[in-house]
Amino acid sequence: MPKTVFSIDQSRPMRDQDVPGHNRWHPDVPVAAMVRPGDEFRVECRDWTDAQIGNNDSANDIRDVDLMRCHMLSGPIGVEGAEPGDLLVVDILDLGPVPQQTGDAPGQGWGYTGVFAKANGGGFLTDYFPDAYKAIWDFHGQVATSRHLPGVRFTGITHPGLFGTAPSQEMLERWNRREQALVDTDPDRVPPLGLVPSPEQALAGKATGSDAERIAREGARTVPARENGGNHDIKNFTRGARVFYPVYVKDAKLSGGDLHFSQGDGEITFCGAIEMGGYIDFHVDLIKGGMEKYAITTNPVFMPGNVEPRYSEFISFIGISVDHDTETNYYLDATVAYRRACLNAVEYLKRFGYTGEQAYLLLGAAPIEGRISGIVDIPNACCSLYLPTGIFDFDVRPTAEGPKAVDRGQCAVTS
Amino acid sequence: MPKTVFSIDQSRPMRDQDVPGHNRWHPDVPVAAMVRPGDEFRVECRDWTDAQIGNNDSANDIRDVDLMRCHMLSGPIGVEGAEPGDLLVVDILDLGPVPQQTGDAPGQGWGYTGVFAKANGGGFLTDYFPDAYKAIWDFHGQVATSRHLPGVRFTGITHPGLFGTAPSQEMLERWNRREQALVDTDPDRVPPLGLVPSPEQALAGKATGSDAERIAREGARTVPARENGGNHDIKNFTRGARVFYPVYVKDAKLSGGDLHFSQGDGEITFCGAIEMGGYIDFHVDLIKGGMEKYAITTNPVFMPGNVEPRYSEFISFIGISVDHDTETNYYLDATVAYRRACLNAVEYLKRFGYTGEQAYLLLGAAPIEGRISGIVDIPNACCSLYLPTGIFDFDVRPTAEGPKAVDRGQCAVTS
Amino acid sequence: MPKTVFSIDQSRPMRDQDVPGHNRWHPDVPVAAMVRPGDEFRVECRDWTDAQIGNNDSANDIRDVDLMRCHMLSGPIGVEGAEPGDLLVVDILDLGPVPQQTGDAPGQGWGYTGVFAKANGGGFLTDYFPDAYKAIWDFHGQVATSRHLPGVRFTGITHPGLFGTAPSQEMLERWNRREQALVDTDPDRVPPLGLVPSPEQALAGKATGSDAERIAREGARTVPARENGGNHDIKNFTRGARVFYPVYVKDAKLSGGDLHFSQGDGEITFCGAIEMGGYIDFHVDLIKGGMEKYAITTNPVFMPGNVEPRYSEFISFIGISVDHDTETNYYLDATVAYRRACLNAVEYLKRFGYTGEQAYLLLGAAPIEGRISGIVDIPNACCSLYLPTGIFDFDVRPTAEGPKAVDRGQCAVTS
Amino acid sequence: MPKTVFSIDQSRPMRDQDVPGHNRWHPDVPVAAMVRPGDEFRVECRDWTDAQIGNNDSANDIRDVDLMRCHMLSGPIGVEGAEPGDLLVVDILDLGPVPQQTGDAPGQGWGYTGVFAKANGGGFLTDYFPDAYKAIWDFHGQVATSRHLPGVRFTGITHPGLFGTAPSQEMLERWNRREQALVDTDPDRVPPLGLVPSPEQALAGKATGSDAERIAREGARTVPARENGGNHDIKNFTRGARVFYPVYVKDAKLSGGDLHFSQGDGEITFCGAIEMGGYIDFHVDLIKGGMEKYAITTNPVFMPGNVEPRYSEFISFIGISVDHDTETNYYLDATVAYRRACLNAVEYLKRFGYTGEQAYLLLGAAPIEGRISGIVDIPNACCSLYLPTGIFDFDVRPTAEGPKAVDRGQCAVTS
Repeated sequence: MPKTVFSIDQSRPMRDQDVPGHNRWHPDVPVAAMVRPGDEFRVECRDWTDAQIGNNDSANDIRDVDLMRCHMLSGPIGVEGAEPGDLLVVDILDLGPVPQQTGDAPGQGWGYTGVFAKANGGGFLTDYFPDAYKAIWDFHGQVATSRHLPGVRFTGITHPGLFGTAPSQEMLERWNRREQALVDTDPDRVPPLGLVPSPEQALAGKATGSDAERIAREGARTVPARENGGNHDIKNFTRGARVFYPVYVKDAKLSGGDLHFSQGDGEITFCGAIEMGGYIDFHVDLIKGGMEKYAITTNPVFMPGNVEPRYSEFISFIGISVDHDTETNYYLDATVAYRRACLNAVEYLKRFGYTGEQAYLLLGAAPIEGRISGIVDIPNACCSLYLPTGIFDFDVRPTAEGPKAVDRGQCAVTS
Repeated sequence: MPKTVFSIDQSRPMRDQDVPGHNRWHPDVPVAAMVRPGDEFRVECRDWTDAQIGNNDSANDIRDVDLMRCHMLSGPIGVEGAEPGDLLVVDILDLGPVPQQTGDAPGQGWGYTGVFAKANGGGFLTDYFPDAYKAIWDFHGQVATSRHLPGVRFTGITHPGLFGTAPSQEMLERWNRREQALVDTDPDRVPPLGLVPSPEQALAGKATGSDAERIAREGARTVPARENGGNHDIKNFTRGARVFYPVYVKDAKLSGGDLHFSQGDGEITFCGAIEMGGYIDFHVDLIKGGMEKYAITTNPVFMPGNVEPRYSEFISFIGISVDHDTETNYYLDATVAYRRACLNAVEYLKRFGYTGEQAYLLLGAAPIEGRISGIVDIPNACCSLYLPTGIFDFDVRPTAEGPKAVDRGQCAVTS
Repeated sequence: MPKTVFSIDQSRPMRDQDVPGHNRWHPDVPVAAMVRPGDEFRVECRDWTDAQIGNNDSANDIRDVDLMRCHMLSGPIGVEGAEPGDLLVVDILDLGPVPQQTGDAPGQGWGYTGVFAKANGGGFLTDYFPDAYKAIWDFHGQVATSRHLPGVRFTGITHPGLFGTAPSQEMLERWNRREQALVDTDPDRVPPLGLVPSPEQALAGKATGSDAERIAREGARTVPARENGGNHDIKNFTRGARVFYPVYVKDAKLSGGDLHFSQGDGEITFCGAIEMGGYIDFHVDLIKGGMEKYAITTNPVFMPGNVEPRYSEFISFIGISVDHDTETNYYLDATVAYRRACLNAVEYLKRFGYTGEQAYLLLGAAPIEGRISGIVDIPNACCSLYLPTGIFDFDVRPTAEGPKAVDRGQCAVTS
Repeated sequence: MPKTVFSIDQSRPMRDQDVPGHNRWHPDVPVAAMVRPGDEFRVECRDWTDAQIGNNDSANDIRDVDLMRCHMLSGPIGVEGAEPGDLLVVDILDLGPVPQQTGDAPGQGWGYTGVFAKANGGGFLTDYFPDAYKAIWDFHGQVATSRHLPGVRFTGITHPGLFGTAPSQEMLERWNRREQALVDTDPDRVPPLGLVPSPEQALAGKATGSDAERIAREGARTVPARENGGNHDIKNFTRGARVFYPVYVKDAKLSGGDLHFSQGDGEITFCGAIEMGGYIDFHVDLIKGGMEKYAITTNPVFMPGNVEPRYSEFISFIGISVDHDTETNYYLDATVAYRRACLNAVEYLKRFGYTGEQAYLLLGAAPIEGRISGIVDIPNACCSLYLPTGIFDFDVRPTAEGPKAVDRGQCAVTS
């Protein structure tokens, strides 16, 4: 077990840790711990919401998650010798939920998948599911089951949703500029088109005083993916993966969290995946001047690990870039096409007795694959969603007899 | 070898076949051959362009492809007893290039990947590659190599780009309505936002006289995917796949073609994939009333085959929904995000000595995977492109030494 | 499609072909066709028995197969420039059953699995199944089903059972010497311990007169695998595989046949696998002096193809080197251990309604994996047999309810 | 993390634990802890030798391992309600090396592979490698590297070598009878043909007095696999695997250990695999009367997990049942054939600069596959060894240029 360079007490919020993390991207968040190229080390992480999500049957806690506080990151970890222009080579050696049972936070034998209400950020299908929902998952080694989703059992592909290096000041300013411009196109929209800097609930690690104030004021929100990495939600950042991060500031300053016990391609519920606190073990190295050598200047490049669970049969759903009313056509819009594929899958699963909310939560958490199939055949983009049949304890394939719809209960809802 | 119910002489265009196919979707295209549930049968197909693409080093033929004629389909195959509301169960038993060497059309030992010029439909990266290009591929069993792309050798995942059932008259009218509305939003755009009905170059199978004229006038173009299937470009419609098509008209009327020797997820060059003529063997069956039973009303559902080539190591590229200028932010736009991932891959491959055009053609043809990674993290969609490292005969992974750029020639260009 | 350098008319036995093949290994069998390093070419093959096996419900034809005639090989193919000490690099580009329907021989849309009677060579379980049996398989693209084995449907991993280069005279003499010595230890055994040279039914290709007589007298039987390759029965010699054969004589002289539509690891019925006639496409090359360079002197080395059907769930059976009476212990005997694993699988499948003979035939033909698990833990070797659960159309896994035994008929038996 | 029902202090031998385990199979070893069907629980295990193997460059410790003490087992775990005739359903939820760094025993960040000397049990290739050797492996998450085997890095498939239920008294007596009979056929052989009961170094768990004496006198050695499970060395007993064990005594009495960080099919060095202490998490259930229902009476049946590392390219070696002198032929002897395949692989690897001992240790520890290819083609069995090419940091495939032999040092040897 490598040495722990960033520790978490899962019973306390990030702000109250001995060495707190941060929830804004800024070049001046102080390094929390230094490591060297070649080092192996462990980083502990809070559940991304840093809230008190409960192992219960009410989704009120999901409804009330404070997005101003999310996503809460561990770090920054400084890497000796890293300079702008280098590539930071990060091997994910291992990761998982909290090893020792010390309380009752997500990651301690269980996790959850949430759907946010439309008023609180929504999700990919928020126009169809505007309320908040939750499913609790129990962990059995690498396998997850849920009392809120009976009939399902699968091997998770555990990964961090979010890691990245610190942006330069110039890059940060560009982010804020372009995101503000986007929000300004429809400032009253719910959910908003973007989340621009705000000092509310900001946490700047070990920074204090005017430094902390400036970080809070200028720092980019940790919600999306950007050039530095960020919230990729790529399930294949799992054990054995190697990620090449661009370095924009001295020491690289690697931060992250948002550990997922499982998720498919394409987190669709915003608070999707099976969320948990836990640990992640890294090995780091540097390719000096690697950004120019390999033209990796604006997004990390990665090599997935070779231990993804092996599923060999899928039932797959297709969507095209035509609205659900079937009357509105979009031009090669993969987002619309994938949404349609998701909705087609939801309708299909309802025929087997799941509620729409249950199906939505399931698609957010299970090892599905989201594929871009056709992106040039004017005017319709075509996307597809691959759902492994082996995760169901019944036969989910179409047959001449038709599906057997049984009562499968319901997920956690708001009171 | 199953009986052939639709034959092609590859030396002649579709219009001159004994039983011609069609290039418009319309409920009244007459059935070319009838089969029964439980039958196994073979359908032969022309290269989708139905043009005379040459095994040479000039892309002039690609530049001059007539989109009014594409995609040319074999069929319709009528299925006895099929009625609106049923699901047509189609098993893809086998498919491949033309078995007998009888001339020199694509599919007879070779195929091609093209990039269309911006003025002629363009492609996914047409703003960056506005001209026409071509690469010729040689077939060695299931393996492809190209003199225009040295250093690459891969197992193809052969599949049809395009199959579907006939639309009902009501559905056809809806398609035409919504696509015209989309085109009307920017009627002078190049390439156009959609391809609306036009009698030019229309082919209506065995229909003659006023029937043929009406089909030519009303028939939907065969370019995009729609509710009936159509141009999915899903690589996993390969040997062993089972597709459940909605049935909208009596006899179902299955048509298709556009066979690909290989393609990744996400055809990106429009005339991408490795295009060829060839054959496809089907088994068909019916699930009576299956559309309602399984809520499969608007797009086919499928189960992929289990013989996809096995690649276990990938170098993967990420893109987010920010324009290449890094200053313009789009709201959860997966199309932009995937384009960025593609461009990132192109830049990377250039460091190893490929031209941008070569890299673009390669990504269009090789067994890459295009994944939707994050689609809810405001404001950035995140997509990724998985490129198998095993298809290169050199080490394509980043190392401390940096890449070895060698002269890798060039693809076919226009004169 | 590569040029055919060795042709077969499937309606005639090998002896009556225009250019006959051979059924004895000997350095002096004349070359049937010459190819060059870098060439791609096709070889057509007879069903290994070269007999008239019928698509019917009687196993009399299997009972009467003449082992003196088996295995019948196509070739030898000479490779220009090949000299003793080289490695012959053979790529298997493609292979399959006879493409054109011209009659009713195995390979023309169907194949068979046989169990030999104990008096005629027996099989791996001959002490438990001493009679002859047969199952007919129908081909549906790459998928096989059998009216004699209802409830089963799988993707075959098509491969040649037997290819090899010609032995040198010195090597041939060594083979004959050591096999005679083995037979002499128990000369009256049924089945015999080995098959030593015999002119009966010998076929020596294009050789005539005294040459043919000498080959018939001295030539090694084609039944086992030996240093030159031979009857490997390795299922992963499939599309995309590359084999490095030692070269012992001028021109290498590659010969083979015994094409299998499907087989697991470990052919267990002798006439197991799904036997058929068909074609195989090769590419050949040379590594000059490769035998010494790579220490590949006594058996081929190979790299399996990457298109093996993907099955992800297995029910696996274990055997140890203790006899079925449970009272006799063998010392680290993997053969006994694997036989026990096979018998355990047979007993298990009988609980689902198959007869023992059906189960035996199924294990011989389906894509099972045969593993050597422990080979040092005194005194018991431990082997295991992995049976993919996805090939059954019922749930073959153990449950609390117990198995559902239904009448599954019977295979073809002798009258 | 499930509750631990059997604890180990890795700094102390098994005899000195608070609740000691056992190293003899006997129905009367007292239950160490009871669990119920449906329970999840953790069992901690010592390195199988229970000796003080050092993280150093001397193989003297391997030379001196006392086989009288091996294999040391944790347990027995009693399962409430289990009765003879039931099947015990054991899910392997998770397993791994010792989570907390508390000293310097194998499993605490490192493990080892050993080769025993011929005088001390030997190994599969003991006639070629008669001395003792050792390689130390460092763990990096699921990845292993070794300073004694430079150029190699692979993902382990962690599994227990040995678990089983207690035999009945009748079964135990049968074991002792048949193994004594085998030993009696050549009582002076080195290594011996079997290991018969001996009170020397026997440990009987919590049993004391005359009970302990009787267990020591009658108890079967824990070295081989037998009807109850035992030392299977099956690498696919990994995370997610489900094993169905026959139950022969009240409470089933599950015991085991011998955890491996990695091993291929076919442990070949006796002290092969990457040996370590660690933990294993189980879920158990019962199928009442399952032995008769499923005809699982003499060996466990299992379903492998779906998280085996994915390697897609192999270089594979073939062996046949002819002795290394090439002059002695054995009848369908898979043990000889597999030994030949192993020796062929060793010779091949030596061409790249490894010593024979290094190659032998590597084959014992890496995720190779050992296959039974042909077992009926008189007189030669044919086995093959699949070595993944991706575990080497150089190109291990044959090329026209020939291999690059570099100095790769040496493993640990005896002084």
